[in-house]
Amino acid sequence: MGDKSNISAASLKRLPQYLRVLKEKQKQNVEFISSTTIANELKLNPIQVRKDLAFVSKTDGKPGVGFEVRELMKNLEDFLGLKNSVDAIIVGAGRLGHALLNYTGFENNINIIAAFDFDTNKCDNDRVFNVSKMENIINTKNVDIGIIAVPRLEAQKVCNQLVEYGIKAIWNFAPVNIIVPDDVVLKNEDLSASLSILLKMVEDRSNKKAYK
Amino acid sequence: MGDKSNISAASLKRLPQYLRVLKEKQKQNVEFISSTTIANELKLNPIQVRKDLAFVSKTDGKPGVGFEVRELMKNLEDFLGLKNSVDAIIVGAGRLGHALLNYTGFENNINIIAAFDFDTNKCDNDRVFNVSKMENIINTKNVDIGIIAVPRLEAQKVCNQLVEYGIKAIWNFAPVNIIVPDDVVLKNEDLSASLSILLKMVEDRSNKKAYK
Repeated sequence: MGDKSNISAASLKRLPQYLRVLKEKQKQNVEFISSTTIANELKLNPIQVRKDLAFVSKTDGKPGVGFEVRELMKNLEDFLGLKNSVDAIIVGAGRLGHALLNYTGFENNINIIAAFDFDTNKCDNDRVFNVSKMENIINTKNVDIGIIAVPRLEAQKVCNQLVEYGIKAIWNFAPVNIIVPDDVVLKNEDLSASLSILLKMVEDRSNKKAYK
Repeated sequence: MGDKSNISAASLKRLPQYLRVLKEKQKQNVEFISSTTIANELKLNPIQVRKDLAFVSKTDGKPGVGFEVRELMKNLEDFLGLKNSVDAIIVGAGRLGHALLNYTGFENNINIIAAFDFDTNKCDNDRVFNVSKMENIINTKNVDIGIIAVPRLEAQKVCNQLVEYGIKAIWNFAPVNIIVPDDVVLKNEDLSASLSILLKMVEDRSNKKAYK
């Protein structure tokens, strides 16, 4: 098993994809799966898949049949820390905020407990609240993750508030570079960056595989 | 200037961020900027920024003052192919589809001309149409990019239709692995993968910089 702390960001990003394939296979009552099959399903390099799985699995699978689906799923879930669910809140209950609040595709065990907005018309006081209630909910529920889905110009102000209220990690969907203190984790979800890659792939189709 | 075709996906993802910083600086009437300043604004390694910019700029900037903001902006826009706008359509006019339709943060010159949905109640026949009109609009407007924002179980079917109608590139936001023919470009927007990185960063804060 590889040293967990040494896994690259690129490998880490592939792990939820493996988990998704395994869940699909389990639904089809598949008991064993080879790294080559996983690689083919995801159009990845089998050697890369084997390397990635070496970080999460104690074994290389059984010769000829591969990994036990159920066990590899468990290993991936353990590695990704999916045993303990993590609480998050969203600031901004516009279309993107609502989309995230209702997104069902997270393989990770994230629990989005509420969204907040400045606009009272957007609040149902069930899952969407006025921002004035944010501090209280963050503190009483001990929320660690704040998701920013406000317009660009409000993002830094919202971020500062979240940090003040004790949020440990920011997932920023606003298209702006925000600044956080050193002890706060920041992940920008930059759709422009993704789009650049797509456009580049279109322009340069022969390099398609290089940008996977 | 680096060979354009050899730029890595990681470098390519940073280019829109540089462009964003430059646009902000231009608004503040800043004329010159050093790679170190850009690196500091984005919390990146200056050496990495210099390497990235070598792909897009003919010069290394003027000693002491750095790059001319306006020229570097132009170089980045040229490199990212932002001169010619690219037409795209969205399938799925739910919350995510609508969020993307109204998203204002794309630094790239993407022109989302319409969204489509199976549900007539979601169609305004202004920007959101019934899927029955999709083939016609794709063909008459010569649309190259299809953005998939439908539920997981519909994604592959929608993708097959888009390919049949002549779409050249798929940007998939549905949380499922879809399959495309070899001559179609596919970019999955996997929020679970992003979230994995965020959660890993939280777990292992000392490695924070490694996952930037």
